[in-house]
Amino acid sequence: MTDLAPVLAAADAALPQSLDRLFELLKIPSISTDPAYKADCRKAAEWLVAALHEIGFTASLRDTPGHPMVVAHHEGASADCPHALFYGHYDVQPVDPLPLWESDPFIPSIKEIAPGRKVITGRGTSDDKGQLMTFVEACRAYKAVHGTLPVRITILFEGEEESGSPSLKPFLEANREELSCDFALVCDTGMWDAKTPAIAATLRGLVGEEIIITAADRDLHSGLFGGAAANPIHVLSQILGRLHDENGRVTLPGFYDGVEETPENIKASWEKLAESADRYLKDVGLSIPAGEKGRSVLELTWARPTAEVNGIIGGYTGDGFKTVIAAQASAKVSFRLVGQQDPQAIRESFRAFVRSQIPADCSVEFKEHGASPAIQLPYDSPVLTKAKTALSDEWPNAAVVIGMGGSIPIVGDFQTMLGMDSLMTGFALVDDRIHSPNEKYDLMSFQKGIRSWVRILDALSC
Amino acid sequence: MTDLAPVLAAADAALPQSLDRLFELLKIPSISTDPAYKADCRKAAEWLVAALHEIGFTASLRDTPGHPMVVAHHEGASADCPHALFYGHYDVQPVDPLPLWESDPFIPSIKEIAPGRKVITGRGTSDDKGQLMTFVEACRAYKAVHGTLPVRITILFEGEEESGSPSLKPFLEANREELSCDFALVCDTGMWDAKTPAIAATLRGLVGEEIIITAADRDLHSGLFGGAAANPIHVLSQILGRLHDENGRVTLPGFYDGVEETPENIKASWEKLAESADRYLKDVGLSIPAGEKGRSVLELTWARPTAEVNGIIGGYTGDGFKTVIAAQASAKVSFRLVGQQDPQAIRESFRAFVRSQIPADCSVEFKEHGASPAIQLPYDSPVLTKAKTALSDEWPNAAVVIGMGGSIPIVGDFQTMLGMDSLMTGFALVDDRIHSPNEKYDLMSFQKGIRSWVRILDALSC
Repeated sequence: MTDLAPVLAAADAALPQSLDRLFELLKIPSISTDPAYKADCRKAAEWLVAALHEIGFTASLRDTPGHPMVVAHHEGASADCPHALFYGHYDVQPVDPLPLWESDPFIPSIKEIAPGRKVITGRGTSDDKGQLMTFVEACRAYKAVHGTLPVRITILFEGEEESGSPSLKPFLEANREELSCDFALVCDTGMWDAKTPAIAATLRGLVGEEIIITAADRDLHSGLFGGAAANPIHVLSQILGRLHDENGRVTLPGFYDGVEETPENIKASWEKLAESADRYLKDVGLSIPAGEKGRSVLELTWARPTAEVNGIIGGYTGDGFKTVIAAQASAKVSFRLVGQQDPQAIRESFRAFVRSQIPADCSVEFKEHGASPAIQLPYDSPVLTKAKTALSDEWPNAAVVIGMGGSIPIVGDFQTMLGMDSLMTGFALVDDRIHSPNEKYDLMSFQKGIRSWVRILDALSC
Repeated sequence: MTDLAPVLAAADAALPQSLDRLFELLKIPSISTDPAYKADCRKAAEWLVAALHEIGFTASLRDTPGHPMVVAHHEGASADCPHALFYGHYDVQPVDPLPLWESDPFIPSIKEIAPGRKVITGRGTSDDKGQLMTFVEACRAYKAVHGTLPVRITILFEGEEESGSPSLKPFLEANREELSCDFALVCDTGMWDAKTPAIAATLRGLVGEEIIITAADRDLHSGLFGGAAANPIHVLSQILGRLHDENGRVTLPGFYDGVEETPENIKASWEKLAESADRYLKDVGLSIPAGEKGRSVLELTWARPTAEVNGIIGGYTGDGFKTVIAAQASAKVSFRLVGQQDPQAIRESFRAFVRSQIPADCSVEFKEHGASPAIQLPYDSPVLTKAKTALSDEWPNAAVVIGMGGSIPIVGDFQTMLGMDSLMTGFALVDDRIHSPNEKYDLMSFQKGIRSWVRILDALSC
């Protein structure tokens, strides 16, 4: 730990210059998906190389078959310091429909949208230029006060995140040694609310399966055959109906192998978020958490595995009625995984479960639709603990450790290709309109984001 | 009972003339669905009026908004005799594709299709002119020998059976008194096989229901909501999966009210048909009777009620995979009814069963798709018993009492509008190609069909 107060003061004092630099980057229309902006993407990468070089990083632009990567290294105060990989992306989404923008998406400005609430407007302010610059500016402030950084840092800025990251895996593969660090810091997520910072520690895994049950070799008339011919919709319904017990638990043998209970202190922190979690269900017309009984909405969606039927079809489904006994019925089923659940073991258990319930007269075919394990930054990881305290010191409310529903492929890649856990935190707000017209980033997110990273870097120092 | 042998002998002796008369009727192209043949339909009706008049019926042509009905009465030997309504139809199916006919559909002929096996070819030979003429010629033979008929007979020949019978119900309604008899004889069905005559005594009823289960007010992402949001496919699967118990019995409360066990002698007669019943399943790629355990294919399809899901749909059902939690899932469910099961009671029981399993967060909507009770000629009905013995005396194998899968609306109308049970028997064979090119009727069907009706009329006499 170093002397923190002067760094925070320096960051605050330099805010006008930090904003000037952010605006320079925001003015570059680095839309990765549109070939017309290829040169702009390169220009944004070059701008970042220069900015990092200016604060003592050995920074370079690395060409790929698509847009270039920016890779930078800083040795930190000592070789004994922990080594962090910071990830962000400099590319942005397209801006159409342009007429809906209240001001030019690539001429950023600061607007007061409510008394005392100022925001930075423009494409990329929140996703992800404003966010990655909180980290760069934190490093700058630290360097300005202490002459070095408290941890060793490798930076990876990608320019294809908004267009599917086609170059990312090959790049990680080719630069495995250079990019492997003790852990990763990923700044592409948001706050729980304007007062409550959040660290995303878990991403659920996914196993997708399709099952097709066949009975007779043709559709049959239910008058002539009803009662004597096997009905594959019955077989399918019965199997799917047995996937959960009366308490909402998944009944597959071994399904919960590798699932650990969430620590009490984490669950307690989620209880404080309960009201907004309830609103989450109410917003879609629901009110009662389904799934495993006795667990909150947040625990169910962040920390518990699921089996969900995503689609089902069989027989006559048009208007009116047809007294048919279908030859086939099929369903698409997905499993969300947590902890150490093994995707292949889950798939095999499901298939065995289904096969064991197929009558002798019927057959079943399975189709595989992907498999990925869960990502879990251990709740007791020192990185998590330190970052949480640092964030809690900065913001009005203590930081919460949350889970993520949507996938963040880079986190899985860091895990599987580089063996690194990722700490995901960021300062975006739910009303930032990312990917939409009038994207914004609160000035508070930017300023306190910089201060948050100063605190986290300090907390992670050796 | 009268002296039977001379009547049978007279029928056999008159076979050439019987065939001449049949051919006259077959030559009239009475295609009811095609307005071009409107006059031919009338001509066929007029021909029948004349034929019936010739053998002592008071016969008349009755106009309808469509094709005319033929109604005829014969007083029989005495006012104490039972009174039977005989039903057949004189209209036929269209003949296209004409090039597939081996000879003109309206120039009937007799062909030997295998050593000793002669058939009458032409449209309407089997469906239904050949069949109805077996009855008319039986009456003619009886009259020729005894001067009268052993029972009172009302005949109803329809000319719209192949085009949906639009005039039938209004005609029954308007002539309720004239057409109400002790029972009906319907000759529009077939033999079990070439040696085994069949009486269809039962038609299963039908209740159609559609259920639509709604959870959230929109489709949800299964990553963000999976485990917390109610999944209507799960709710639907569980409900449908509980419709049958482990023995294949329907679990709806009160479902089996009004269902009686089939008499042992009937079941025993079905066991003799077991081999062809097994083939019935094998022909469609199945081998094991589904539904209620411990019952044969024939009992299951003829004498037991069912619940069948005819269609199910929900969520994503296209190619590939989509991790969605659907807002809605729906199914079409039908119930085949037997005995005295009450269609409305079944519908209400099903709806209560479904509603009791709908979670508080979900809602269910029901749509009604028709309801009709089962038709059952009591197995111990004297008409059935007598006809069975009569048929058994005529054919190599004893007659079997069977059920019907496909519906025969006239039988339901006779039951509900005129309060009459129907005895359904006929001499068509499964290879008669009704509704198709090269329709035929075995000469044996015609000759022994006439003899069968002679025996049945005799058996029914007072």
